[in-house]
Amino acid sequence: MPSAMRHGGRLVVIGGVAAGMSAASRARRLRPDIEIVAVEKGRDVSYGACSLPYFIGGVVRDRSDLIAYDADFFRRERQIDVRLSTEAVALDPRKRTVTLKSVDGAAEALAFDGLVIGTGARPARPPLPGIDMEGVFTLRTLADGESLKGAIDGGGVKNAVVIGGGYIGLEMAEAFAARGVTVTVLELLPNLLSTYDPEVSAIVEKELLRHGIIVHKGLRVEGFEPDASGRLGYVFAGGQRIPTDLALVSVGVRPNVELAKAAGIALGPTGAIKVDARQVTSEPSVLAAGDCCEAMHVVTRRPAWVPLGTTANKQGRVAGENAVGGAAQFGGIAGTNVTKVFELEVAGTGLSTEAARKEGLDPGSVQITASSRSHAYPGGSPITVRLIFERGGGRLLGGQMVGREGVAKRIDTVATALHAGMSVSQLSDIDMSYAPPFAPVWDPVLVAAGQAAHKARR
Amino acid sequence: MPSAMRHGGRLVVIGGVAAGMSAASRARRLRPDIEIVAVEKGRDVSYGACSLPYFIGGVVRDRSDLIAYDADFFRRERQIDVRLSTEAVALDPRKRTVTLKSVDGAAEALAFDGLVIGTGARPARPPLPGIDMEGVFTLRTLADGESLKGAIDGGGVKNAVVIGGGYIGLEMAEAFAARGVTVTVLELLPNLLSTYDPEVSAIVEKELLRHGIIVHKGLRVEGFEPDASGRLGYVFAGGQRIPTDLALVSVGVRPNVELAKAAGIALGPTGAIKVDARQVTSEPSVLAAGDCCEAMHVVTRRPAWVPLGTTANKQGRVAGENAVGGAAQFGGIAGTNVTKVFELEVAGTGLSTEAARKEGLDPGSVQITASSRSHAYPGGSPITVRLIFERGGGRLLGGQMVGREGVAKRIDTVATALHAGMSVSQLSDIDMSYAPPFAPVWDPVLVAAGQAAHKARR
Repeated sequence: MPSAMRHGGRLVVIGGVAAGMSAASRARRLRPDIEIVAVEKGRDVSYGACSLPYFIGGVVRDRSDLIAYDADFFRRERQIDVRLSTEAVALDPRKRTVTLKSVDGAAEALAFDGLVIGTGARPARPPLPGIDMEGVFTLRTLADGESLKGAIDGGGVKNAVVIGGGYIGLEMAEAFAARGVTVTVLELLPNLLSTYDPEVSAIVEKELLRHGIIVHKGLRVEGFEPDASGRLGYVFAGGQRIPTDLALVSVGVRPNVELAKAAGIALGPTGAIKVDARQVTSEPSVLAAGDCCEAMHVVTRRPAWVPLGTTANKQGRVAGENAVGGAAQFGGIAGTNVTKVFELEVAGTGLSTEAARKEGLDPGSVQITASSRSHAYPGGSPITVRLIFERGGGRLLGGQMVGREGVAKRIDTVATALHAGMSVSQLSDIDMSYAPPFAPVWDPVLVAAGQAAHKARR
Repeated sequence: MPSAMRHGGRLVVIGGVAAGMSAASRARRLRPDIEIVAVEKGRDVSYGACSLPYFIGGVVRDRSDLIAYDADFFRRERQIDVRLSTEAVALDPRKRTVTLKSVDGAAEALAFDGLVIGTGARPARPPLPGIDMEGVFTLRTLADGESLKGAIDGGGVKNAVVIGGGYIGLEMAEAFAARGVTVTVLELLPNLLSTYDPEVSAIVEKELLRHGIIVHKGLRVEGFEPDASGRLGYVFAGGQRIPTDLALVSVGVRPNVELAKAAGIALGPTGAIKVDARQVTSEPSVLAAGDCCEAMHVVTRRPAWVPLGTTANKQGRVAGENAVGGAAQFGGIAGTNVTKVFELEVAGTGLSTEAARKEGLDPGSVQITASSRSHAYPGGSPITVRLIFERGGGRLLGGQMVGREGVAKRIDTVATALHAGMSVSQLSDIDMSYAPPFAPVWDPVLVAAGQAAHKARR
């Protein structure tokens, strides 16, 4: 760790959203004596990017609800020198200097004793004809969310096309529908939510159709075309010309690694910044955290890139601690995620069947449907649980669930079992809670794990 | 295992509720060739005893909803010779005979090749003056539930006293209140729900008071007294004379071990039947399962007696398999439980602070309150998480939670961590799910585990 930080010094954090502000805050908590500069390219820090679909859809009413703490809070309460609308354009890890450029064009070389890169990720923008046309959006930053909301608020959006059936695409389909917009989802792959097994995606797709969303799968988007007024009028996909007032491109994200790469910092096999368990990069004075870097996957025990807000916050905290002389370790990821799709809770953790095959494993799977409550107790609804396991030994590799209640946090049981390296047989032994309003006496996870254990032995 | 069962033979199961019918069904599934006799003292098999408070309270409307499968189903579909209203009065493990006595007085000696004791437990009935008076109830069997419901349905019950503030007492307080009855709960100990830490019980007590339940703690019940008509009129407790129309005695249960004990089968330190991980008793031809026997506690690694329906079903399945030559193992208990108390979900697993001290451990604890949803997303409510851990190493010992949503199944994450022998630091590393409608970015369990890890190090 940077020895200079033992007696004061300056920590620079690049990026002011989840990872960056977690790192800066953690460092401040441990070290009241050092100088901390946090540099953010955009106009806001520490906002809840995951809440943007609910802001656009009208569930979250106030812009201020999206912001946990603003820049002034960090300046005033945590003595963090937050610099908004400022970009880090060059980094020299050996000389320990970073060059900052503010929106007004002024450049400044800043010396540092420790530095945390938390530059995040940006939406992928395939080079399609017309993608820069007015009316074609991506969603990542608070500014993106505000312009998308502005477009809907302005009226005149009757039809929207969502390109990409991942979780942001589906959350936005729901948000548009809540605003009275007719929504078409276009997915290149044969199934929505491609990190899930197709059998689970199929349940989610039914829910979308039930709510009037139009879904086209296996369709490649070819470009955008203006209407008579010069604004977006059509999306071309698979030879079809789909009339639309608005298009959202949500076909994944890419890690912002340019600063690190130009500074000679090593990237990992996923293309994101390579870090060790302490979040240190290939340059000892530079740490990285969040969507710009990799993380160890607890199932594969190899670096993976699964950009999620929870990971960014945790890694940021570890990086902030270690940048000022600590020895914290990040515990790895299972890729746990949950999404609300209309009335469904959709949750997954670990590897899908396809992901497991790509890792060279021999996965088996079981899928069961059971009630969310005791059969005697009214109001229960079906929960589908799918477990993926290694044939032979029966090691648990992943789990996926869909249902109207009791799914979002039930997945954490499977995630915990993944962290512990459990077999499906061990999972089937867990003493899980039971009371008629909340579960059947055999919890759906236990039923699935029991069947998986049986199947793994064959 | 009984060698005779390798080539046909007779399995006798004593007790037809959770453990017994699970054992019989499992044995039948594995062995279509053997004879299976299931003996039940009462008039019903395989009913959901945990749903009885909801039946009495009117949430579960139909008696038939309480019964998963009736005796005829087992006879017809599973070829299990179910004998209702029949008691096993004597057992000779060496000669492999059991003496059955039916309600009409006929006795029969039945030879067996394998036998599973699933005699369950019965409510404790302290020898108080007047406890056998009309109007004083206990609740355990379906018949108990029906007579209690009959008393309420008959009208005339304006006031009820619930003796014992455990989970059945509190579920019944809610059930009575739902039927328009004024309820007083009397608890001998200084706190309700004595398997929880007092700080958590206090939250539950507030919810009871908020719903008009009268709660008296630290009050010893001295007896019952009739009114002018000769029916129950008063409960005496702590020198007070409390007028009431009905009293429910729910001061715990006792294992039904008399048959086993008289047969020379060893009891364990808890007073329940001692079994190994295969559910085999001290007599190799006799297995036991459910509320009549002990189980290995995954935290203490010692035998414990925590009678719960989930355990009974799991142990029954293991016993049924092993009684016919299998080698299944029961994975132990964490004592995981959940109860609905009006609008609260109350869940616990592992050891309380007091239980940990009784085990000779040095427990520390943390308690945090966080929101059930992201602060941006509307409708969230506070979740309180309390974790108990071992000072020094920080081994997780137990967890308790209370809140209006997201508690019942969140406890399973802690239970899974207990099964895995995790430290609070390891728990704080779990990749838990996050989306604004379902959790804050730092899940309440992670917040508590992080604080516990910090505290454990000091």
